[in-house]
Amino acid sequence: MIETLYWENNKLYLLDQTKLPHVIEYVECKTYKDTIDAIKTMVVRGAPAIGVSAAYAMALAELEGIDLNVAGEEIKRARPTAINLFWAVDKVLNNVELGKDAVSTAIQMEKEDIEINKKIGEYGNTIIEENDTILTHCNAGALACAGYGTALGVIRAAHESNKNISVICDETRPVLQGARLSVFEMQQEKIPVRLIVDGAAGHMMQKGEVDKVVIGADRVAKGGVANKIGSLMVALAAKRYDIPFYVAAPISTFDFENNIFDTTIEQRNSDEVLKINGKYIAKENTEVENPAFDIVESDLITGIITEEGIKKAL
Amino acid sequence: MIETLYWENNKLYLLDQTKLPHVIEYVECKTYKDTIDAIKTMVVRGAPAIGVSAAYAMALAELEGIDLNVAGEEIKRARPTAINLFWAVDKVLNNVELGKDAVSTAIQMEKEDIEINKKIGEYGNTIIEENDTILTHCNAGALACAGYGTALGVIRAAHESNKNISVICDETRPVLQGARLSVFEMQQEKIPVRLIVDGAAGHMMQKGEVDKVVIGADRVAKGGVANKIGSLMVALAAKRYDIPFYVAAPISTFDFENNIFDTTIEQRNSDEVLKINGKYIAKENTEVENPAFDIVESDLITGIITEEGIKKAL
Repeated sequence: MIETLYWENNKLYLLDQTKLPHVIEYVECKTYKDTIDAIKTMVVRGAPAIGVSAAYAMALAELEGIDLNVAGEEIKRARPTAINLFWAVDKVLNNVELGKDAVSTAIQMEKEDIEINKKIGEYGNTIIEENDTILTHCNAGALACAGYGTALGVIRAAHESNKNISVICDETRPVLQGARLSVFEMQQEKIPVRLIVDGAAGHMMQKGEVDKVVIGADRVAKGGVANKIGSLMVALAAKRYDIPFYVAAPISTFDFENNIFDTTIEQRNSDEVLKINGKYIAKENTEVENPAFDIVESDLITGIITEEGIKKAL
Repeated sequence: MIETLYWENNKLYLLDQTKLPHVIEYVECKTYKDTIDAIKTMVVRGAPAIGVSAAYAMALAELEGIDLNVAGEEIKRARPTAINLFWAVDKVLNNVELGKDAVSTAIQMEKEDIEINKKIGEYGNTIIEENDTILTHCNAGALACAGYGTALGVIRAAHESNKNISVICDETRPVLQGARLSVFEMQQEKIPVRLIVDGAAGHMMQKGEVDKVVIGADRVAKGGVANKIGSLMVALAAKRYDIPFYVAAPISTFDFENNIFDTTIEQRNSDEVLKINGKYIAKENTEVENPAFDIVESDLITGIITEEGIKKAL
């Protein structure tokens, strides 16, 4: 198993997910600003992995002798949608206020993330049946977390308990996390996996080839869940064809205070859509809308699989 | 305006749509087999354009002195889903039986295709309102026809009648006809256009940024419409957010005999999904499902815009 991130000699090493699956290479973060850059450029991505990376960014700031409140504000501005980023910074600040140090807090949070994911896997496994084909969108796998994964953690747990299952991965444009990361993780685990374009998910469901949908989340709040762009359309197709649609996410992804429609949806740069493998798919100056996330409304969600059990959408 | 195809000195010239928008280049078809290859490799694509090309393939077979029934059977096997291919071959055979020649029949069919599209545009324009933003999927434009276009013909007609409109194009993976062809056509006409990934269509509708959806069709039959993969999910999102969803297609696309679910959905090769601009997005041996079309069920369709007026789905 390839590690998403590790802490060594007071430095953070992040697997460069922009280069997967072709190149396995780690980016060394010596400073909290290095870590912010890595989050912004999606060297590391996935809500729980962003959370743990943010905690380590705070650890680096502490080692650099930077005011943690100042560093924390800056880290929170790296990406706007995943609530785990805010949660992690605040958790480190609280622990420091209680007399702990940021470094050991971050190390502890990394460990806990994996334990939480294993519990999500255990609860999630209860809804997976023998011979299920599970469709997933984007990558809510080990690579989206400190390890094991949330949505793919559920699939991993089902596979580890010897259930005969197979997986369909949406490629997940524009950044192709499904094709590049989720397919890769499933192939490493020798779980049968098929790749489709995002537009084909509805067709596969209409044909009766999908038994369950399990995806991750960047934020769970009143009214629904924010997750990778395209999740809403998958949920609408699942609803149409009566396919259970689950979200797997730790409690740290829950925002109990706000409505989901108040979430800032990050708009990313045009080239992420326009340029694939170094070549433009339309004229360079083409106007692009590139929302990174969308909102799945609560009535489309069968349940949210957390480390505390399966809950109803808020 | 760039021509999709033209007939000159007893040869068919097809604009190579696999190279757009970067390169404008025509493929010369000297034989009916050249034309079959061009249809299979998607040098020419789009149901009406495939129909006219098939008619010209019959014209070439006639000039080659090939038995037209034999050539016709072979041409029909080029691609299985678009009914226009079958319709065009049979129309040429019927005309030949009535004493006409295939060459003049094909030339006539090319002319008629453009006239039909202009009528579709006229009827379609009646449902477009001032300041509408219209979302479209794939390319049902001039490039999908002998000229003018069906879905984009409606948009063209609205623009020509001085309505202030704008367009959102789904990129339409895997072959990216939306990004490469529809965006290009709109830019040539100076109609404001924005490009999105396929997964973003639901989000744009949820946000209230889409007033109408207009797409083309490869086949209209009892129970629904077959069109480019991803159309179903667009239709489900339009239904969810009460956005009128129109299909624009000539009567030659209608199959009055069969149920739409009896349509053969073409499965294309894995590399179409796996390899983008020469580079693999997952391991080369990854298992892929690559259905080229899906089925939009009749209850999701507001109306079908034809050269005879706007009709209900079958």
